Amino acid sequence: MKNAVVLFSGGLDSSTCLAIAKSQGYNAYALSFRYGQRHTVELDAARRVANHLGAAGHLVLDLPLGTIGGSALTADIDVPKDRDTAEMEQDIPVTYVPARNTVFLSMALAWAEVLPAADIFIGVNALDYSGYPDCRPEFVEAFEKMANLAIKEAVEGRLMMKVHAPLMRLNKAQIIELGMGLGVDYGLTHSCYDPSGDGLACGRCDSCLLRRKGFEEAGVSDPTRYVPQ
Amino acid sequence: MKNAVVLFSGGLDSSTCLAIAKSQGYNAYALSFRYGQRHTVELDAARRVANHLGAAGHLVLDLPLGTIGGSALTADIDVPKDRDTAEMEQDIPVTYVPARNTVFLSMALAWAEVLPAADIFIGVNALDYSGYPDCRPEFVEAFEKMANLAIKEAVEGRLMMKVHAPLMRLNKAQIIELGMGLGVDYGLTHSCYDPSGDGLACGRCDSCLLRRKGFEEAGVSDPTRYVPQ
Repeated sequence: MKNAVVLFSGGLDSSTCLAIAKSQGYNAYALSFRYGQRHTVELDAARRVANHLGAAGHLVLDLPLGTIGGSALTADIDVPKDRDTAEMEQDIPVTYVPARNTVFLSMALAWAEVLPAADIFIGVNALDYSGYPDCRPEFVEAFEKMANLAIKEAVEGRLMMKVHAPLMRLNKAQIIELGMGLGVDYGLTHSCYDPSGDGLACGRCDSCLLRRKGFEEAGVSDPTRYVPQ
Repeated sequence: MKNAVVLFSGGLDSSTCLAIAKSQGYNAYALSFRYGQRHTVELDAARRVANHLGAAGHLVLDLPLGTIGGSALTADIDVPKDRDTAEMEQDIPVTYVPARNTVFLSMALAWAEVLPAADIFIGVNALDYSGYPDCRPEFVEAFEKMANLAIKEAVEGRLMMKVHAPLMRLNKAQIIELGMGLGVDYGLTHSCYDPSGDGLACGRCDSCLLRRKGFEEAGVSDPTRYVPQ
């Protein structure tokens, strides 16, 4: 069995990604972060899903992205609500977190070198997404290239790092269909950027809207618990 | 005045690097990390030197590299002592920290995007060094390329990130000569991987040996306070 590190927020995409890694025969080590996000409730979901899907391990690490700020997810900036698809496609929203996936992948790389694991999974996709630049294939490819120049295990020829982004070309409905085929219980996952105090999804942030639309388009009943509107 | 983020350990190289950034007219924001290193005393040096050189700001962030381990600097592995130059050149030593410069540069990138700063300085050099792969020019170039695909400010054309490694082609003696010309007080800096409880340098780890040799070759009296041998 080969090891893989799976970046894992406990959301719909990364939960699917963890199931994919498992289905491909990897010992899947899930990696989550407490990075100052307003929706730390996602970490409860991450623990539930890691257990449900049988992750080989689950590490939750602290990162000081909140100290750096610059995002509606980590600083005192309102999360946009009720945006339509055209608005989402127009620009990179304030929920973008500076260098987040670069930092997350770097930590995954560190853990991968120690495990060791030659494979890192990240659940980014470039179709039904919020326009974040660090979700695009050109970013993932450039990170992988850099990673193979960065670490001892790669430079000395024992690991050839591969960054897998198996959801890159799928829309949200396809991701849900794929995950359901792999036994993912999406009722355990959490995607909302701005949940209520008791962890209910707002139903109105970009992340909720994309998720809700995915369930509709997949013709699957949406298991998400929303705040009563 | 332009802003720059300078990765800054409080050691000889990064202190020189901070002085170089200042001499090039940058507002130099120093960035240090408490990452589980055994030599946290370097952070006291970092505070002294940031103040001495007039950094525009100094941020010390916590990073969980100690949780990941895999290095003599962050885990319970002995720091090698008394190695000669041939031994240092032979392989990558156990003081290598998995993905450290990738993680550090990623955090620098996040801060740079928020400041904003288009310039990041890192004091790596590929001559008098310990053979760490993430100190080589090909790594720095690959990181810069990735960075310009990763962040919103670059992708939207407002920042073109540049990673400066002004010490890359200098030996330790040249670095010291350059820094002294810029007014760096090396007596304030700390390089030792394995200092005594009261912060004296061991004089025997790779970092001490490279530093000591640098002062000798530069013909400069070594201001380092060593443990009595």
